[in-house]
Amino acid sequence: MQAVRWVLSHIIHRHYYYHYVFKKKEIVMKVQVTQERLAQAMLLVGRVATSRSALPVLANVLMKTVDKQLQITATNLDIAITHTLPCKITEEGALTVPARLLSDYVNSLPSGNIDLTTESNKLHLASGEYTSTINGVSPEEFPTLPSIGKNTPIEIEATELKTALQQTILTASSDETRPILTGAYIHTHEKQIYIAATDSYRLSQKELKTKPTADFALVVPATALSDLLRIIGDGSGPVTFRYDDTQVEFVFADTQLITRQIDGTFPAYRELIPEKSDVSFTISKPDFVNITKVASLFARESAGSITLEVGDDHVSITSVASQVGENTSKATAKITGEGSVTLNSRYLLDALNVIDSKEVTFRFSGKISPCVLSPVGSDDYIHIIMPLKS
Amino acid sequence: MQAVRWVLSHIIHRHYYYHYVFKKKEIVMKVQVTQERLAQAMLLVGRVATSRSALPVLANVLMKTVDKQLQITATNLDIAITHTLPCKITEEGALTVPARLLSDYVNSLPSGNIDLTTESNKLHLASGEYTSTINGVSPEEFPTLPSIGKNTPIEIEATELKTALQQTILTASSDETRPILTGAYIHTHEKQIYIAATDSYRLSQKELKTKPTADFALVVPATALSDLLRIIGDGSGPVTFRYDDTQVEFVFADTQLITRQIDGTFPAYRELIPEKSDVSFTISKPDFVNITKVASLFARESAGSITLEVGDDHVSITSVASQVGENTSKATAKITGEGSVTLNSRYLLDALNVIDSKEVTFRFSGKISPCVLSPVGSDDYIHIIMPLKS
Repeated sequence: MQAVRWVLSHIIHRHYYYHYVFKKKEIVMKVQVTQERLAQAMLLVGRVATSRSALPVLANVLMKTVDKQLQITATNLDIAITHTLPCKITEEGALTVPARLLSDYVNSLPSGNIDLTTESNKLHLASGEYTSTINGVSPEEFPTLPSIGKNTPIEIEATELKTALQQTILTASSDETRPILTGAYIHTHEKQIYIAATDSYRLSQKELKTKPTADFALVVPATALSDLLRIIGDGSGPVTFRYDDTQVEFVFADTQLITRQIDGTFPAYRELIPEKSDVSFTISKPDFVNITKVASLFARESAGSITLEVGDDHVSITSVASQVGENTSKATAKITGEGSVTLNSRYLLDALNVIDSKEVTFRFSGKISPCVLSPVGSDDYIHIIMPLKS
Repeated sequence: MQAVRWVLSHIIHRHYYYHYVFKKKEIVMKVQVTQERLAQAMLLVGRVATSRSALPVLANVLMKTVDKQLQITATNLDIAITHTLPCKITEEGALTVPARLLSDYVNSLPSGNIDLTTESNKLHLASGEYTSTINGVSPEEFPTLPSIGKNTPIEIEATELKTALQQTILTASSDETRPILTGAYIHTHEKQIYIAATDSYRLSQKELKTKPTADFALVVPATALSDLLRIIGDGSGPVTFRYDDTQVEFVFADTQLITRQIDGTFPAYRELIPEKSDVSFTISKPDFVNITKVASLFARESAGSITLEVGDDHVSITSVASQVGENTSKATAKITGEGSVTLNSRYLLDALNVIDSKEVTFRFSGKISPCVLSPVGSDDYIHIIMPLKS
């Protein structure tokens, strides 16, 4: 479905979006790069290249000299990632070559300089005693993505953005029948930036410390944000975020990611967040993780369904008696009210996994209202899980 | 094929091999073990349990009190592994329970004591605030493997046996149509113990330092030896090795592995090892690995086929020109003679991967005689690879 839709949009928008940069003539490129930098570039860029597209050239990366540097780009038409690396240029030029082979090959080479030379759509690579030729495809076949309008960018610290994305994109949907839910909703609300995502069974919302310079409301594919997380890695420094009517751009250090926005209006999710709940408990996160994990082992047959019972000074989790057996695990907690609720143990474990506080608060009202999970010590994150009918 | 054959043999030999240890009455077992020891036991034993057998009880482990200890056994009828661990016994007894669930559950529990109690084929586990019930199957359903005749055991140091197995079982065949080649040939020859294995494309032979106390020739399933490697892990100390006409037993610390022998005569492989070769080179192992790896990337379409060219003071490896491109990589070596040979790069990499010397010697004669690879500095290991017709 994904591929078909995008190839169609590629064709429809071809004249508007994609133009061919290179004229039909023999392009010779001669550059020298280090193995370390080329391997790093392929690590950042290569995974977006796809051999499962109707356009075979999308399995390739585009290598191109720009402004005395080497640019390496891959795109699957949803997302384009470009990494720029220093190089010594003897002749300017460009070529596309298979991403996986180039990546594997460069990773196998010893560190040191690699001479890259193109000739009749072939890339010659020479590094010490290693020489090889990789068959490529003309850069004319490669789509170039649109550039983003030059509006004022927002700078978000990489570590802040990384946490926010890790805590939200897990609740985006992977079901393409409702495309709007496959995105994260990056938007402003009362002079704050929020990131939210929901698959209609669960919902998460993070408030950023970074302040907005203008109001906006964008729905960005969660898969693209997952690639952005990979690009940020353990790095720090500013991520520059820019958008226009249809595209979003993130730039971190020497790497740029451009992705389309998802059309449509994100659900008015704030109405779903209960302000108060009848029952509430505060518990050590490791304890909560442990009793949930143990109970989930016995819930494999029942789609992970577990029941939380809250009362006295204990939270107990029970799995429904099944063919394999049954389980009850308890942990102490600070409790207000009493009651029980049944939910999917995997959703609860996913949520606990992205919360980094020592203690968490869990609250609910009866068996059908949304359950709310939040860290103790900060009120910038909220995670909601819908109960299962028991 | 495997499962069918073994279930048949199980039925045929039932009266001879398998007897039921437990009488039909309510068996109550009450023991206390530590989480750490039970988790370790399940790690060593659990993987042999199989849910893909026609006998459902083989997905379970047998827990049984024996001599004031707890014995945990799993078998797939080819192999049986028993681990013995200390416990406090209140009531002797036995039960079988699903291996995977028990293993996952015990791994999720916090460290400390676990009380195990059986009742009507259910296992109750209690550990602090965690209580659960796992549905089991009567121990009467579980096959007990034959005991090995009390012949004089051979003691082999774990680290020596580990290296020998790692260097040989990789060349055993996984093709069940010639069962004899799926085993490793553990045998004596001129007062030395050897382990050899061949899949008819390649062959390896290791000579042990440990001396035999009698002559023997056994073919042991490579899969069982692979389990033995897992049991040895990074441990040291003696491995006790005992055999009778049909079975082999290895005991390491508190763990026993019993496996059937493979019927038949192992090929007279010594005749295949060429005493001398026309061309020979000695090369740094990391260099040889690197140039082979790089060439293999270009050989994916041609089933990994690469050509070694030996001459002057260089070894060069080339991949055949193909759709993706072509490659040549060189490394310096001490060379006698000159020539070229084509072989499967994966076989060469597998062999280099299990040789732990800094330098290796590779020798061959023409394009169709066996190639011989051996470590420099010890003559207890030899690895043979048949060339590909080029």
